Amino acid sequence: MGNKAVIIVHSGDMDKIYSALIIGNGALSMGLDASLYFTFWGLQRLKKGALDKGPLSKMHMLGLVKWIVKKRMQKANVASLEKLMKDYKELGGRIIACEMTMEIMGIRKEELHTEWIDEYGAVGTYIHEAKDASITLFI
Amino acid sequence: MGNKAVIIVHSGDMDKIYSALIIGNGALSMGLDASLYFTFWGLQRLKKGALDKGPLSKMHMLGLVKWIVKKRMQKANVASLEKLMKDYKELGGRIIACEMTMEIMGIRKEELHTEWIDEYGAVGTYIHEAKDASITLFI
Amino acid sequence: MGNKAVIIVHSGDMDKIYSALIIGNGALSMGLDASLYFTFWGLQRLKKGALDKGPLSKMHMLGLVKWIVKKRMQKANVASLEKLMKDYKELGGRIIACEMTMEIMGIRKEELHTEWIDEYGAVGTYIHEAKDASITLFI
Repeated sequence: MGNKAVIIVHSGDMDKIYSALIIGNGALSMGLDASLYFTFWGLQRLKKGALDKGPLSKMHMLGLVKWIVKKRMQKANVASLEKLMKDYKELGGRIIACEMTMEIMGIRKEELHTEWIDEYGAVGTYIHEAKDASITLFI
Repeated sequence: MGNKAVIIVHSGDMDKIYSALIIGNGALSMGLDASLYFTFWGLQRLKKGALDKGPLSKMHMLGLVKWIVKKRMQKANVASLEKLMKDYKELGGRIIACEMTMEIMGIRKEELHTEWIDEYGAVGTYIHEAKDASITLFI
Repeated sequence: MGNKAVIIVHSGDMDKIYSALIIGNGALSMGLDASLYFTFWGLQRLKKGALDKGPLSKMHMLGLVKWIVKKRMQKANVASLEKLMKDYKELGGRIIACEMTMEIMGIRKEELHTEWIDEYGAVGTYIHEAKDASITLFI
């Protein structure tokens, strides 16, 4: 039983990317390995400049509320997604980009933050990583 | 390998809270331990009076359909979320409230059902619980 | 520790059903067992004719974009959901239909693809399957 967290990042919602990276960083900080498999809308967030773009959540946060939450996040020292990603990579976290999604959505490598990506893979890559993991999540 | 179900409750959608509590109660009934980690929109549901408030799902259920489903749930003896939570606590289920979410969303302890909450924690609390769990879910 | 993937299919979104079936087929192809537990909006997709009906995602894909994606999926040899389901069954994948959902939503067996369904179960069935699984997901 490998001491590893393997997370599928299917959603592109900012609040869910936060959760994925916070869990990934938490796992790494506590001595586990971590792999994030970005697919579908999640993969869109690996495009250059896309990680911190847009509202925290399309449905729950608009205008003033969003502004208040941003201020509170700064006060609570909650890092931006770019910062969380940099920490994740420095701590040794793995990023896998879903090749099928790239093909379907017409995403080229040049559009992505290739410096974050360790592997371009398919479902076999995921199963191989996840079958020995202690924590498996679909976000 | 601990015989435990550890569930992150990220969503505040009523149908997903149902799933989380039903799985939690099912696990406890079958002799497993259970921990629910409430974060983001999920944590909002631990506010006093918030658990059974609102439609089953914002998108799928409106007006008449909602009324029919409610009648059918009564007929099928499906408990309210408050009742499911009380059962969960009586069966020994653990509830963890995410402190970061409280800070970001400006939620004070007095606003929460503190009698349900066993611990106010962060991602480290979650990883500690989840790394030995047999079932890990993100809802 | 059983070499098994056990996935709760709660969502009815087409992109999430894709993920569930692709992961299920991937697991089976790599020698793991697989069980998909269809509940709530997911179960609606087991109704006759419902699997491939509707947009890839209500929110992200409209009109032209949807058409482009469909063309790309054909070009990338991405199977329809019906085809993926047939492969899943042929590879020995298990399907469990949630009885409580059937009762609440008023779904009769005759409306479902009963030839795909191995068992009509409740949360106990799920816990029994999942407690020894190496991969557990909630989709």
